[in-house]
Amino acid sequence: MAEPVNHRWVLVARPVGMVSDDLFRWEEAPVPQPEAGQVLLRNLYLSLDPTNRGWMTENPGYVPPIPLGAVVRGYGIAVVEESRDPRFSPGELVSGMIGWQEYSCLPADALTRVPTNVPPPTALNVFNATGFSAYFGLLDIGKPRTGETVVVSGAAGAVGSLAGQIARIAGCKVVGIAGGPEKCRWLVEELGFDSAIDYKSENVRERLRALCPDGIDIYFDNVGGSILEAALDNLRLRARVVLCGMISTYNNERPAPGPANLINLVLRRARMEGFLVTDYASRFGEAAREMGQWFAEGKLRSRETVVEGLENAPSALRMLFTGGNVGKLVLKIARDENEA
Amino acid sequence: MAEPVNHRWVLVARPVGMVSDDLFRWEEAPVPQPEAGQVLLRNLYLSLDPTNRGWMTENPGYVPPIPLGAVVRGYGIAVVEESRDPRFSPGELVSGMIGWQEYSCLPADALTRVPTNVPPPTALNVFNATGFSAYFGLLDIGKPRTGETVVVSGAAGAVGSLAGQIARIAGCKVVGIAGGPEKCRWLVEELGFDSAIDYKSENVRERLRALCPDGIDIYFDNVGGSILEAALDNLRLRARVVLCGMISTYNNERPAPGPANLINLVLRRARMEGFLVTDYASRFGEAAREMGQWFAEGKLRSRETVVEGLENAPSALRMLFTGGNVGKLVLKIARDENEA
Repeated sequence: MAEPVNHRWVLVARPVGMVSDDLFRWEEAPVPQPEAGQVLLRNLYLSLDPTNRGWMTENPGYVPPIPLGAVVRGYGIAVVEESRDPRFSPGELVSGMIGWQEYSCLPADALTRVPTNVPPPTALNVFNATGFSAYFGLLDIGKPRTGETVVVSGAAGAVGSLAGQIARIAGCKVVGIAGGPEKCRWLVEELGFDSAIDYKSENVRERLRALCPDGIDIYFDNVGGSILEAALDNLRLRARVVLCGMISTYNNERPAPGPANLINLVLRRARMEGFLVTDYASRFGEAAREMGQWFAEGKLRSRETVVEGLENAPSALRMLFTGGNVGKLVLKIARDENEA
Repeated sequence: MAEPVNHRWVLVARPVGMVSDDLFRWEEAPVPQPEAGQVLLRNLYLSLDPTNRGWMTENPGYVPPIPLGAVVRGYGIAVVEESRDPRFSPGELVSGMIGWQEYSCLPADALTRVPTNVPPPTALNVFNATGFSAYFGLLDIGKPRTGETVVVSGAAGAVGSLAGQIARIAGCKVVGIAGGPEKCRWLVEELGFDSAIDYKSENVRERLRALCPDGIDIYFDNVGGSILEAALDNLRLRARVVLCGMISTYNNERPAPGPANLINLVLRRARMEGFLVTDYASRFGEAAREMGQWFAEGKLRSRETVVEGLENAPSALRMLFTGGNVGKLVLKIARDENEA
């Protein structure tokens, strides 16, 4: 039997504009050997997120850049193949920064055990950075009160679809903004959003005015750009603008102008605040418990778009920026032998 | 002796671009007669503020527009000429929305007695909306802590020069941004700012980086535009951006693009918040007491630029937008007979 190899994607250039195939090199390498305190992982699922593109740039701003020549950084779920740490045993499912590759060796300290009562793609959506971003962004930064009006952009994406549902659970009226009639229908018919705006075919500013006649109390923004500007024109007094991300701007070759109407923050005495989910690490357990309860009760639904095959990672990542995914985008690297 | 007349400025058009003389008509009218509950005022000083231009537009956003054909709205200090309300007597100094005219009749309810231990221009600066904006904007929205770095734009203006001094009193390091070497020297040598940046001759972004090597904790913004953008590139983790006003944008004929780098609010987990001083009306007494104490101790200094003659009101207002004033801009309508 041939020696097993580790297929992997290495970053060879930094992105300018849309993430392109030539940023990456496909390599074969030996499967690494774990040292004391390390665990050898066979990687199963990769989480693909808009922030991944930022990691490829020279200055991501909150984490070090991925070095050129290094395996592409990526969070995911893996199965323990061999453990040189007493805390983990072969066959267990763990999550961590496994990278865009088939096998990883990681320090046991950098791994978290994954709940086995939900499929791994759901675990990557609800019970990880995505779900926790929705949870803390909406509840901690947005501070919703029953009866308030919440608008979510990127609403058919992973964080947006969860944030909107959490706003519904909190007793708010929820309007989602998404691209295309199918996504909009899903938000309203499946997830219980009160209404949805198709930014590709509707005038977002006017639709927000019509759907939120008293103004927006919380705008949960995943996209930035002109949709942020339209929301700023419809704020209610003491509104909160939660800045989770600005996906519409990430592939700009040069900085695009920001909203021309920030004066609305003064006129409406409104607050705009950014956050990073990593700051809430000490409270992830609290979020996992509460969201787990909602999930078990059927109040919170997870949807994932799963692309198969590590070789498709670059094109799958682009789907985030072209609206190709609904819900959480996950790359399936290999089949878990424990799966049916 | 001729019947006294009331000279006044009436708004006849709405501003497009810079406030121009042809927005106003100079009129003579009879001196009004007070009804029961009203007070006849002889007007002494007008407060000229950037927000006055907003009141002349169709949609100021937080107050009704000045109707076309009406006397230009303006806050100021007057002496009671005749009172038909038991609370006020002739000779007393009061403040209120006296308008751009020599005489006003106002309901007694709309008047506030003015402290007589400071000159009226100082009262209009420190003990009114200007001073209260600096006080509540910096302390309540900015929440400074000892040792933090505070940057103030429009720092040689009325609100900015007070906000920077209050930040010094709060134990912060203070950097002012102003136009021209004379204003910058005044900030550092007279008001005790730690340093000043002359935005007309220096690269604000680079100077902020050099003067605030650990980043800006509080950016108190009076100007918006490119200076706001430069500040956003230099925020420290958990920074607060206090939006008091955006004078650089008020005379734009069409909305100018906003900052292209709002993503910094996410990366730095920063908060940007607008406020209007009128929301703090119930706490004006608290601010007046504390600022009065600082003023008496010489820790807080007031400077006013006083222009004489009601006929000069339109050109005086333009000084705010061309950098013509240092500190508070006040129009002296008439000499108070009580003055020496």
